[in-house]
Amino acid sequence: MDRNGQKAPELVTSVWLNTPEPLVLENLLGRVVVLHAFQMLCPGCVSHGLPQAAAINQLYRSDEVQVIGLHTVFEHHAVMTLAALKAFVHEYRLQFPIAVDQSSEIGPIPVTMQKFNLQGTPSLVLIDKTGVIRFTHFGRLSDMEVGNMIGQLLMEDNGLQRATDGVEMKEPLADGQCDDKGCSL
Amino acid sequence: MDRNGQKAPELVTSVWLNTPEPLVLENLLGRVVVLHAFQMLCPGCVSHGLPQAAAINQLYRSDEVQVIGLHTVFEHHAVMTLAALKAFVHEYRLQFPIAVDQSSEIGPIPVTMQKFNLQGTPSLVLIDKTGVIRFTHFGRLSDMEVGNMIGQLLMEDNGLQRATDGVEMKEPLADGQCDDKGCSL
Amino acid sequence: MDRNGQKAPELVTSVWLNTPEPLVLENLLGRVVVLHAFQMLCPGCVSHGLPQAAAINQLYRSDEVQVIGLHTVFEHHAVMTLAALKAFVHEYRLQFPIAVDQSSEIGPIPVTMQKFNLQGTPSLVLIDKTGVIRFTHFGRLSDMEVGNMIGQLLMEDNGLQRATDGVEMKEPLADGQCDDKGCSL
Amino acid sequence: MDRNGQKAPELVTSVWLNTPEPLVLENLLGRVVVLHAFQMLCPGCVSHGLPQAAAINQLYRSDEVQVIGLHTVFEHHAVMTLAALKAFVHEYRLQFPIAVDQSSEIGPIPVTMQKFNLQGTPSLVLIDKTGVIRFTHFGRLSDMEVGNMIGQLLMEDNGLQRATDGVEMKEPLADGQCDDKGCSL
Repeated sequence: MDRNGQKAPELVTSVWLNTPEPLVLENLLGRVVVLHAFQMLCPGCVSHGLPQAAAINQLYRSDEVQVIGLHTVFEHHAVMTLAALKAFVHEYRLQFPIAVDQSSEIGPIPVTMQKFNLQGTPSLVLIDKTGVIRFTHFGRLSDMEVGNMIGQLLMEDNGLQRATDGVEMKEPLADGQCDDKGCSL
Repeated sequence: MDRNGQKAPELVTSVWLNTPEPLVLENLLGRVVVLHAFQMLCPGCVSHGLPQAAAINQLYRSDEVQVIGLHTVFEHHAVMTLAALKAFVHEYRLQFPIAVDQSSEIGPIPVTMQKFNLQGTPSLVLIDKTGVIRFTHFGRLSDMEVGNMIGQLLMEDNGLQRATDGVEMKEPLADGQCDDKGCSL
Repeated sequence: MDRNGQKAPELVTSVWLNTPEPLVLENLLGRVVVLHAFQMLCPGCVSHGLPQAAAINQLYRSDEVQVIGLHTVFEHHAVMTLAALKAFVHEYRLQFPIAVDQSSEIGPIPVTMQKFNLQGTPSLVLIDKTGVIRFTHFGRLSDMEVGNMIGQLLMEDNGLQRATDGVEMKEPLADGQCDDKGCSL
Repeated sequence: MDRNGQKAPELVTSVWLNTPEPLVLENLLGRVVVLHAFQMLCPGCVSHGLPQAAAINQLYRSDEVQVIGLHTVFEHHAVMTLAALKAFVHEYRLQFPIAVDQSSEIGPIPVTMQKFNLQGTPSLVLIDKTGVIRFTHFGRLSDMEVGNMIGQLLMEDNGLQRATDGVEMKEPLADGQCDDKGCSL
């Protein structure tokens, strides 16, 4: 069972790449957080999940939508090492912060993956501005679905006193920008 | 110049397909309206725009997001006839309501296309729940961008008394107000 | 039943586009001929068949592989007119010679389509250097399959005296050699 | 400079996967051999080269066209180990025989890669039925081009006396990085 509606537990990680210092969810309140769990030897992650995460990272400003890659190794531990991940991240030119999920002492499933109760890779977790898990999905999602959900979360009030189970959506944060692609809402 | 921020003018059409009766924007207040302007002989419409419109139509409930196809013929008028459009809609299995833009008596550009000041096909127009044009784009858009914008619009308050100050964007006219651009209903 | 192994019947057409004069199969002996039957309102032709025909046309020299588009209208006759086809060819920037299959006096299926006994659109017909139909297919084919077959046909001896019934694509007799099947010149 | 027109040197390998015993080019005379050089951390190999090799393997019978994958590690040696490759081959469900190129004692480029003078990964080498290298390419090739060349090679007489020089060949590009096209030396 997923953790939607619950406060997102803090990430438990061993290493971070692409960031000068570890990201802490508590410090990201006010932003929508897109957590993409992957394994470098997972074909669906390489062909679909990671390119989608990269597209999200490119579309949004990171102070509005923070993309985080989470390397949740639950098989082939011996070869999906930190060194291998670094080479992978370099060759695939991944730009967003990526954390290595802390391996567990009691089994193959790493700690954060367990805490979010993820069912495999790729998995996408959407955390709202108040730090609550709002969506958890294992497998593929269309870009349109993902864009739709992030768009909705962006519009939510970020008052921390908001009830975490009800979706109170009355305060649009409009901020009109135009560029060569058009004008955004 | 686009019409973003202005009240969407009513569609002026000659025929409707895929709907028992013509759609009237005024009756769609409370829904987000996605207006997709196309021509059946426009390659970018066939390969990209119409499939995207169909994907929107499939993702959302029509009482939340109403997709409307608008056949805005501005070239090859002799062959893009109603009969041809009907065969096209049948063969491409388009399911959403499609209107034929009223041809103009004074030039090749049909009436609604002029009223929205569209620059070509495919064009996408997003109209918010209060009937205001919020986004107009000629050419391609990624599914993620479109999903993001629709998601944002879905979250907006649909009260007609919506405050206009939280929407610094393109100065949408509030109901019953006038400014140098005109007067809204 | 297809006509593979038989001499290709001459095309019966009403109009040609993209060529100063009608193409005659008899004059194309020595070339591999790729005949692509399509209808402008056939989604599979627009999304797959015609782009593949265009790719063939771009990959090969026309004096080695001659691509011919054949507009075989067997439905929606009233709207797939010559004028409509011209607009279509213009907008889709099709470069190779395209013929309009001669309409039949006795039914909806045009004459050449009947002579080749095609089952629908898109259909691909490969005619070898000696004018013999070697392959007929209704529906999709991978680019690799098509490339493979054209590559094989290109390598065949083009001696006009070759037996037209022996479709033995993979083990042709070399010049001046004999084996249990016979002797080649 | 590539080795087209020369007798293909025997593969020098350390391990073979997906085959009960090592493949020897000398034993494959009479077949067209498709040698696909790749690295498991090369994005262009994963997205394009290996799927193309798999498509070749599926389209042709292996006694006519023998596909061989060659893991030519020239960077990130520490992480592209045999164990990692095995996990990769398993997860990507690669079915065709794959050899690990023998590492060199004097530099990062493995032995067979040097012998064929490959410029990076992915590289495709086509060896004809007589064991002669006929085509060497670094980077992407369309499926149609590859199908065309294999089709042509399949049609060639396999008499060993065939002239090896009349072969048109493409020039590989080399430029010291990984990009969408692949990884160059």
